[in-house]
Amino acid sequence: MNFVVFSNGILLLGMAGIMAVVGAVFPATREVFLISAIVVGLIGAFASLAVSHRMSDFRRLHTFLLTGSIWITGATAGAMPLWLWQLAPIDAFFEAMSGITTTGSTVMSGLDTTEHGILLWRAILQWLGGVGFIVTGIAFLPILRVGGMQLFRTESSERGEKEMASAARFAGATVWIYLSLTGLCSVVYAVGGMTFFEAIAHALTTVSTGGYSTSDASFGHFDSGFLQWSGTIFMTAGALPFAWYIKVLNRRDFRSEQVQGILIFFASTIALLTLWRILTAHTPLFETLRLVAFNVVSVVTTTGYATTDYTMWGPLAVAAFFALTAVGGCTGSTSGGAKMMRWIIAIRKIRTQTRKVSAPSAVIFARYEGRPVNNDVVGGVTTFFVFYAATVGVLAIGLGLYDLDLETSISGALTAVANVGPGVGATIGPAGNFSTLPDGAKLLLCFGMYVGRLEMLTVYVLLTATFWREVA
Amino acid sequence: MNFVVFSNGILLLGMAGIMAVVGAVFPATREVFLISAIVVGLIGAFASLAVSHRMSDFRRLHTFLLTGSIWITGATAGAMPLWLWQLAPIDAFFEAMSGITTTGSTVMSGLDTTEHGILLWRAILQWLGGVGFIVTGIAFLPILRVGGMQLFRTESSERGEKEMASAARFAGATVWIYLSLTGLCSVVYAVGGMTFFEAIAHALTTVSTGGYSTSDASFGHFDSGFLQWSGTIFMTAGALPFAWYIKVLNRRDFRSEQVQGILIFFASTIALLTLWRILTAHTPLFETLRLVAFNVVSVVTTTGYATTDYTMWGPLAVAAFFALTAVGGCTGSTSGGAKMMRWIIAIRKIRTQTRKVSAPSAVIFARYEGRPVNNDVVGGVTTFFVFYAATVGVLAIGLGLYDLDLETSISGALTAVANVGPGVGATIGPAGNFSTLPDGAKLLLCFGMYVGRLEMLTVYVLLTATFWREVA
Repeated sequence: MNFVVFSNGILLLGMAGIMAVVGAVFPATREVFLISAIVVGLIGAFASLAVSHRMSDFRRLHTFLLTGSIWITGATAGAMPLWLWQLAPIDAFFEAMSGITTTGSTVMSGLDTTEHGILLWRAILQWLGGVGFIVTGIAFLPILRVGGMQLFRTESSERGEKEMASAARFAGATVWIYLSLTGLCSVVYAVGGMTFFEAIAHALTTVSTGGYSTSDASFGHFDSGFLQWSGTIFMTAGALPFAWYIKVLNRRDFRSEQVQGILIFFASTIALLTLWRILTAHTPLFETLRLVAFNVVSVVTTTGYATTDYTMWGPLAVAAFFALTAVGGCTGSTSGGAKMMRWIIAIRKIRTQTRKVSAPSAVIFARYEGRPVNNDVVGGVTTFFVFYAATVGVLAIGLGLYDLDLETSISGALTAVANVGPGVGATIGPAGNFSTLPDGAKLLLCFGMYVGRLEMLTVYVLLTATFWREVA
Repeated sequence: MNFVVFSNGILLLGMAGIMAVVGAVFPATREVFLISAIVVGLIGAFASLAVSHRMSDFRRLHTFLLTGSIWITGATAGAMPLWLWQLAPIDAFFEAMSGITTTGSTVMSGLDTTEHGILLWRAILQWLGGVGFIVTGIAFLPILRVGGMQLFRTESSERGEKEMASAARFAGATVWIYLSLTGLCSVVYAVGGMTFFEAIAHALTTVSTGGYSTSDASFGHFDSGFLQWSGTIFMTAGALPFAWYIKVLNRRDFRSEQVQGILIFFASTIALLTLWRILTAHTPLFETLRLVAFNVVSVVTTTGYATTDYTMWGPLAVAAFFALTAVGGCTGSTSGGAKMMRWIIAIRKIRTQTRKVSAPSAVIFARYEGRPVNNDVVGGVTTFFVFYAATVGVLAIGLGLYDLDLETSISGALTAVANVGPGVGATIGPAGNFSTLPDGAKLLLCFGMYVGRLEMLTVYVLLTATFWREVA
């Protein structure tokens, strides 16, 4: 247990360090960030020192407490400067939780005139949340055996040793790739015409598939085909499995069913929606393609930027983007949602089940990346989908208690749990904002973002008696 | 294959017989029904005679063709009098499909002044569809091994022989119980103040959990607490497993996890919604309880009567009734939807999976009615839920193509697939009507009702290459 407290303390110390730097660089919000840095840093130092003398008792089940606590700690610390600045406490917590879970739903408006320190802090929260989730997805979730992620445990123990000398080197490579992508993205954005600050801020929230912008018009603020296509490409880059990058760099091996799956999904969805727009609204081909591609990729990678209010395209677009919200990127990336791996396994399992109905005695396996998928993984994937649907359903009913209309309730619940950002409907759609929601609804959505980021079961298992019996 | 054609022919002959009787009894629509009886009867006679000389080749996979064809045939024949009467062809087919699948969505209005022959015919379609589905659920679906129904195959082969000397006696007992419930229900309705005709028509659509009424105000036409509580009880009766009735009658054995599950679910949902209404709208207790109980039971049993426009109770009620639409009654009853058995198995499987995360080495089984649930059944249940969700999703997007708003699209798709009847929203809500939808949308909904009634895979398997390879 001490290791859990220690890790949270180290996180707080790290965040305090970043706050101090942000405070030093931006004079307008210097006081806000320096006070936050001192408070957060002191708590972090106290917590880590208090337990540093004895840390040998770390066991597998403590990993749940570690992942479960670290996002709460990060959101709380992240909220502090926002609260000291001018947000109400619950708004600050919502904004920070939305940031660190890389959701990107915002309660703030007037972004174009907001102090740069605050805007950068929001972007940094998403960037930290993004890299934190990649490490969680690669290192922790497979150990925790939740959501079918145990599939990747086998993979790394079978092949991993050849690819990576140690988990530390693997994590190091991941962070290096993440940094490189962010750097490359900011250069491309600056070349495309963003200011230096905008380029950094948007690169931080693009590669992390977070979606916080420095403008109320979101990415639509930049009326440039080059920038929008660049955004489309780098959002995609953030949603690909980081283990795949390592494999490509080390061995020139491009095979990956998730990468193949997401690219085919993008191509077909974008083609269909573009075709529909051209045929029904007679919009010009290349502009339509750019708008559709950007917004589809933004929602599926769970980034949540918008370049246009696609809900004005009519009911079909609303239904389509609503459905796209549920999809998600790849496992082992910064992306939220259900993720390609689970869709692929679900579809294959369903296909074998369907075949078995016609031929009950046939021996047919579902396979993933060439290997048969065992019942444990299928059970994990199924459990994930059930909790995903149940969480969205219960949250939607909870939001209904606050008299939100059905569209807002359901799409709000879904966009939170999938860590996307915008919902559909007038209130929380791509042109809207979460600020007008009641406080209780905001807290419900915070819960949704939190369990969504941690892939459901990592949190829910903490609510079971079995867990506490085993951990005791 | 000949047996499939023969069975459809016999169905047509039976329906022609009923049409002839309806024609004889109600002079106002005599011509309509007599012409239909002659046409349908001739086709039925021709089809059954043409193939009666050779019927020995019936195999298991032919059962899919039988169940798949019989509902189409029934809907088509059922539509004929409605079309000859005054409905447009697609409206007539929609009304008949909605009837024979016991959905209860209607395109008709002015019911209070509609000829009694037409009203009775709608009710008869639901009654036939109801008993047809019980027999399908008990006799065919377990053989087909779809949706986890193979669970009941084991049950009947293990214990069935002691309970029933033969499948024929079992079917006979089912029909006898169905007739008794219908008779009892019509007597109670008549005692409660309905006219003789209303009592019969509503008994036919209550016990079948169909939901067609003889009034535009649906069951709300009868402003009687006694009648509404009676309706609540008989809708519940239609949604309980008919095999359970037989067990109770033969052995005084009341145990059934499905019956227990649905009653607990009713009690808790009704209590919560009533409490919420009383606290927020300050409505009187007993009236609220009656309204809530009737409408909750109506939606969950997939009947679809309404006594009030509950969507006027505010967004929470809309969300709650939307969610209730997905639940469904018990397997082996007239009810549609996902059904209690599947929810129970899903919840238990999820619970064991959750426990396994904390204690990976523990040996824990999900059980149903005391016996461990094997992977084949879990796979069937999972596949059902996936196709259920996917069908609703695809249909909703399809309806979006006809410019229906999101609420109408999603709730329309769900209410069709779950065979409930009303959706939510102004157009197709409990106070609305399906008549204004475009023809294409109506056909999509017909498809939804059809695959929903046949529990998804029974239809979808006909679209696979494996099926046609095996059946050839």
